[in-house]
Amino acid sequence: MKHILKAEQFTDVAFVDKLCESAEKLRAEDGKGKILNSLEGKIVATLFFEPSTRTRLSFEAAAQKLGAKIVSTENAMHSTKAAAGEALPDIIRIVNQYADAIVFRHPEIGSAEIAASVSEAPLINAGDGAGQHPTQALGDIYTLKKEFGKIEGLKIAMAGDLKFGRTVHSLLPMISLYKDVSVYLVSPPQLRFPEEYKKPGIKFEESENLDAVLDTVDVLYVTRVQKERFASEAEYLKLKGSYVVDKASLSKMKKDAIIMHPLPRIDEIAPEVDSDPRAAYFRQAKNGLYMRMALLQELLAKN
Amino acid sequence: MKHILKAEQFTDVAFVDKLCESAEKLRAEDGKGKILNSLEGKIVATLFFEPSTRTRLSFEAAAQKLGAKIVSTENAMHSTKAAAGEALPDIIRIVNQYADAIVFRHPEIGSAEIAASVSEAPLINAGDGAGQHPTQALGDIYTLKKEFGKIEGLKIAMAGDLKFGRTVHSLLPMISLYKDVSVYLVSPPQLRFPEEYKKPGIKFEESENLDAVLDTVDVLYVTRVQKERFASEAEYLKLKGSYVVDKASLSKMKKDAIIMHPLPRIDEIAPEVDSDPRAAYFRQAKNGLYMRMALLQELLAKN
Amino acid sequence: MKHILKAEQFTDVAFVDKLCESAEKLRAEDGKGKILNSLEGKIVATLFFEPSTRTRLSFEAAAQKLGAKIVSTENAMHSTKAAAGEALPDIIRIVNQYADAIVFRHPEIGSAEIAASVSEAPLINAGDGAGQHPTQALGDIYTLKKEFGKIEGLKIAMAGDLKFGRTVHSLLPMISLYKDVSVYLVSPPQLRFPEEYKKPGIKFEESENLDAVLDTVDVLYVTRVQKERFASEAEYLKLKGSYVVDKASLSKMKKDAIIMHPLPRIDEIAPEVDSDPRAAYFRQAKNGLYMRMALLQELLAKN
Repeated sequence: MKHILKAEQFTDVAFVDKLCESAEKLRAEDGKGKILNSLEGKIVATLFFEPSTRTRLSFEAAAQKLGAKIVSTENAMHSTKAAAGEALPDIIRIVNQYADAIVFRHPEIGSAEIAASVSEAPLINAGDGAGQHPTQALGDIYTLKKEFGKIEGLKIAMAGDLKFGRTVHSLLPMISLYKDVSVYLVSPPQLRFPEEYKKPGIKFEESENLDAVLDTVDVLYVTRVQKERFASEAEYLKLKGSYVVDKASLSKMKKDAIIMHPLPRIDEIAPEVDSDPRAAYFRQAKNGLYMRMALLQELLAKN
Repeated sequence: MKHILKAEQFTDVAFVDKLCESAEKLRAEDGKGKILNSLEGKIVATLFFEPSTRTRLSFEAAAQKLGAKIVSTENAMHSTKAAAGEALPDIIRIVNQYADAIVFRHPEIGSAEIAASVSEAPLINAGDGAGQHPTQALGDIYTLKKEFGKIEGLKIAMAGDLKFGRTVHSLLPMISLYKDVSVYLVSPPQLRFPEEYKKPGIKFEESENLDAVLDTVDVLYVTRVQKERFASEAEYLKLKGSYVVDKASLSKMKKDAIIMHPLPRIDEIAPEVDSDPRAAYFRQAKNGLYMRMALLQELLAKN
Repeated sequence: MKHILKAEQFTDVAFVDKLCESAEKLRAEDGKGKILNSLEGKIVATLFFEPSTRTRLSFEAAAQKLGAKIVSTENAMHSTKAAAGEALPDIIRIVNQYADAIVFRHPEIGSAEIAASVSEAPLINAGDGAGQHPTQALGDIYTLKKEFGKIEGLKIAMAGDLKFGRTVHSLLPMISLYKDVSVYLVSPPQLRFPEEYKKPGIKFEESENLDAVLDTVDVLYVTRVQKERFASEAEYLKLKGSYVVDKASLSKMKKDAIIMHPLPRIDEIAPEVDSDPRAAYFRQAKNGLYMRMALLQELLAKN
């Protein structure tokens, strides 16, 4: 595995498990304050053609915690525009002269594959438009394993915009590596999960009613419902309330269930939920950091 | 002391003195080319919601001189806007997953307190709009001590816009920790120092005439008079000249007085003043660097 | 040599050769994975008043590969504007308090000289508008030496916009340090090489016909022909084709010739050329990295 481009690459459950173990080990060492240096002497370029502070900082922290140095661009689109039409492959080939790995973010779907096709250095897709964001999905898998010990047998509700939300599309292929998982797809009819993303081996159940599954599931994976997906404001407001997770929702959930969210959230999870131990979304962000460390080490470290 | 939010926090003169001593010690070691590493393994996030190259670079140099790594955002407002309404507390909680300390700058007054209220990592207010900029004030105190040996008994003129200039508002509470200081508040009547910022223990004298105090003071602390504060251009121009420090001003000042300015300046100090040894404003910037190192070490280093 | 401002500074061929040897040595050590630290404890500021991802990342990688830390601003013009008219000398004097060297980029010609005139820290001009970009020229000299062993006796075609293209203007003075070089200046009549940049000791030949020199030259140095330089689109299109290097051009060139380009390119070199070993432009970019390392070490390292 040279580049990290999409969730579908990860077809080997043993490899995903190994990454999770590596993330867990790095977390333990980091927690003890151990100075890690497996990437000493390496340079990681974060090449962001659209700003994403959260993702960029996560990767830059991850790389530096392993001893790598960073060269970074917060908004490469600006300087590319200045360059009056320079092709993406040329930019990648140049950054290859300076960096040992590239973390790549771009608003256009498919651009990460184009970039990787000319890159001698490992390239990690950190989100290409409505396309993929595979390190998010890997961090989510690590979260499920860390919170529950195993993924097999979990009942997972995915709620919100299941049509356009790339997070759940990327997560499904990885979940399908594990047995006996039930997925409850909860969305407004307009935002139903596309058939083509459904994976064999997972038991799917679809509904529009979040409340009805709250007492069943181990995991409630919330995504944002965006107003602009609806024909009218009235239609949006009618549905909106049923996908807001609040204290009332918590009271219906199992004691050992968790709530996940890729963040940023707007109002689909009420702030009153944050202090409940079942609110796992900030832990999820931390897990993403350690998973990115594991990935960078896998791609770059000499053993 | 977990977070650094405002000058009023610093009520213990022994603590301020200790920070100044720590700054002085770090300067000496840095001057000898010693590689410092008290923050090795730490990550400092500079989260700037408005650009401020000067302040950001100062903090990033300070942290790195102590061995910390940096994750940085030059203009977080851009990516927050992209995130379509994400709340500040969520951004802080996320950065908490990646960083051991946050240096925070924001155009809205009070935002640093909101950010700190949810931050597990120490947060340093590096300026929140018309609010506070406490590390500037600490650097200024260090400058006074370094230039004069002690602050007790100093005669300090503050000249320019004393109404809106946050620097002098932040500096006053710290000066009031020291005895026998006289402060000469020199401003146009429109831009007079607000009564509520006056501190007991300091002898105040107010006037509109800068020339009249030049031969008296040990310190001339200059701030910018902004045109937009005046009702008419004519009124502005009438006053403007009397607050420009030039060679003629220098000739009236004591031989061992100093001129301070938080910078940037526009034209309130003529460039011809720069080569005079009494021009302390660039030394003041360097002192700010070492004070920020002392603060970061105080907040982050394990002893 | 304190500051690096323009190609004309480099009048001593022994010094240029020494830089090339130093670059070559650093490349060898880097290639072996050796951790270099000659700039440990140093801070390099990259102060970019216009974005240039390529140049900034090259310098930041170079400095970090030598163990220096970076404080960086991707677009300083923004924050300077915020500072409402602060003068460039003040900005430089402030950055002097934080950094041991400054890499400086600015859209205005001559600004690097102004900046350097007040800088106590070494300042490197990384491009000032239509002015100079001397580290590009040094990297090009290193490329010629590396590709051919020596520069003496080379036949070099420079093709494209020779009137406004600053790269070739900067390269000429350095080439003139070496004997017996022939330079073929190939351009449309509107974009002819200015007489004042011609250097004694070089044999010049001028033409409009690129094809006619292809079988003669050792080096084809291509620059971009910009549409906006022409009176009409028709005139532009008439000429454009004759300055596009493609497989047909390659077939006319010597087997051991090379093609150089400062990049970015738009369409003056067809992508089909990239896979030919004579396409040296990406190697040229890598050479620029090692030359920048050599320069930073020369300016900053204590021996």
